[in-house]
Amino acid sequence: MEDEKKSTQNASINLIRPIRCIVKLGGAAITCKNELEKINEESLKEVSAQLRQSMIMQSPSGKNLGMDWSKRTGESDVSCDIDCFRHQPSLDSSPFIVVHGAGSFGHFQASESGVHKGGLDQPLVKAGFVATRISVTKLNLEIVRALARESIPSIGMSPFSCGWSTSERNIAFADLSVVAKAIDSGFIPVLHGDAVLDNLLGCTILSGDVIIRHLAEHLKPEYVVFLTDVLGVYDRPPSDPNAVLLREIAVSEDGSWFVVKPTLENMKVQITVAAHDTTGGMQTKISEAAMIAKLGIDVYIVKAGTSHSVRALNGGLKDDIPDDWLGTVIRLFR
Amino acid sequence: MEDEKKSTQNASINLIRPIRCIVKLGGAAITCKNELEKINEESLKEVSAQLRQSMIMQSPSGKNLGMDWSKRTGESDVSCDIDCFRHQPSLDSSPFIVVHGAGSFGHFQASESGVHKGGLDQPLVKAGFVATRISVTKLNLEIVRALARESIPSIGMSPFSCGWSTSERNIAFADLSVVAKAIDSGFIPVLHGDAVLDNLLGCTILSGDVIIRHLAEHLKPEYVVFLTDVLGVYDRPPSDPNAVLLREIAVSEDGSWFVVKPTLENMKVQITVAAHDTTGGMQTKISEAAMIAKLGIDVYIVKAGTSHSVRALNGGLKDDIPDDWLGTVIRLFR
Repeated sequence: MEDEKKSTQNASINLIRPIRCIVKLGGAAITCKNELEKINEESLKEVSAQLRQSMIMQSPSGKNLGMDWSKRTGESDVSCDIDCFRHQPSLDSSPFIVVHGAGSFGHFQASESGVHKGGLDQPLVKAGFVATRISVTKLNLEIVRALARESIPSIGMSPFSCGWSTSERNIAFADLSVVAKAIDSGFIPVLHGDAVLDNLLGCTILSGDVIIRHLAEHLKPEYVVFLTDVLGVYDRPPSDPNAVLLREIAVSEDGSWFVVKPTLENMKVQITVAAHDTTGGMQTKISEAAMIAKLGIDVYIVKAGTSHSVRALNGGLKDDIPDDWLGTVIRLFR
Repeated sequence: MEDEKKSTQNASINLIRPIRCIVKLGGAAITCKNELEKINEESLKEVSAQLRQSMIMQSPSGKNLGMDWSKRTGESDVSCDIDCFRHQPSLDSSPFIVVHGAGSFGHFQASESGVHKGGLDQPLVKAGFVATRISVTKLNLEIVRALARESIPSIGMSPFSCGWSTSERNIAFADLSVVAKAIDSGFIPVLHGDAVLDNLLGCTILSGDVIIRHLAEHLKPEYVVFLTDVLGVYDRPPSDPNAVLLREIAVSEDGSWFVVKPTLENMKVQITVAAHDTTGGMQTKISEAAMIAKLGIDVYIVKAGTSHSVRALNGGLKDDIPDDWLGTVIRLFR
């Protein structure tokens, strides 16, 4: 009852400024998938720079006003020019929310211990829960820092700490007021797939995709962008030379979906994406995306760090999808 | 109104098992005070080992069942023996809560930008808020990992993410249900001094000492231990060769306090402790401790990593303070 009451409260969350965009940084796009806990530094830097362009104005001085004033591994001092901020008139950022996956962080710890299946009374699961949270919060910190170095006022927020919990893997309780307050205070919340408590199983893994759907349902962003490591959604594994990029998917009011573009007769739609999608594969992702699109919110699935992702993040695809834009749009069929 | 309602709800938090102890890991005890963002590895390891002894039974195999399965800086692989957990009957831990200070983390970022004074509309304060949170969460992650390596099922929980906020620096809202659920699920929550939103100032710093008082008021632990880098509370700076350790301080019902032991006539009580106490000095600490003691909860202020801290953490000082125990007890005068 308490949970129901609080969940309902989410429906009435009023933000001072409406959310412009929710971005998913796919684990495969920002980590090195074949190496344990290794960040793809180059990709993360490029993604962070593109996000800065989308959400904040360049400082008048042209200087990069970095907000990560912490020591980096192997360096003995911090590199920041704090005085720059004194002469900066304002640092307004467009209301974005960032959610990231785990990639090569958390996956090893979670799968070795079976955290997603629950059973906290088993020592292995309990230890795996602790180990998984350490790994995903380690990644979260690195992403928050990468964004902060690009002047994005990013604030790490773990779903577990925010008190989010599930009931048989579906979100049972997720008070969004803390996220809303952070946004209204001018910050960019950075959430992540996390190990959480589950009413029935004891514990489970709450994936970034499920988090995005929940945020989209309650905070109604203008659009949602999934940054991944391939161009978009294909009809078969992208490694297959015959794979065809699905450019547009339409979602009906009842949640069913069909490929609008390209028009491939008798195409056996065997949707797939990157192999390193550890939380349910592309079928899950497309179902989650379809549920967002059903709300009338456009979803763009696009390769991170490309000119295509820049266009998606800037919101330039709202009215018209140019022919030279490569990616997958999932939108309500009207 | 909403805040008031929720705050009141805290009063009725019922834990399955009552909290045994809330421990403060003082910033000065676990970091190197004169070096930016440097952990005192030796001290942190010793503190973690002592906490393990106090809160969990040694595994029957005698093996250390480490729960940090993440790569450490400079190492290419994780070192953990996951199979050990499969043969472990249980991993029960005594209900403890750990709160740590910032030490040489966060202080530089907060003081350079004036986060504690508020004013999020100023770019410097906003950037400082982001930078402070990065630094303190970096420390939190390292402490959670050090505890996890000692088999302590530690879970990092940032007050900001938990939705805690202040009103002119006093706690205005701090829902403890997430902390309570973590404890009831068998975890050890690890909180920390944090940058938080303030209803009136915009933002401020919520110190670890204030967090401890709030937790103690609502969760009623058996006792509270402050681990610091000196033996306890002195009548003057501990560096002064004439400094006298105050062994016992009694707190009256009205919150006033006086030194019981040693009995020093005409002693000008010029209470002080480590120089690196960045959030208000010893006067604040003793006031916070006195407010806890007023609730009938014993407070022990003791040097980290000593035989004296072992006794305090184990709860062996409840009935009688042995003459050879060095530290400061602050308790209700009955």
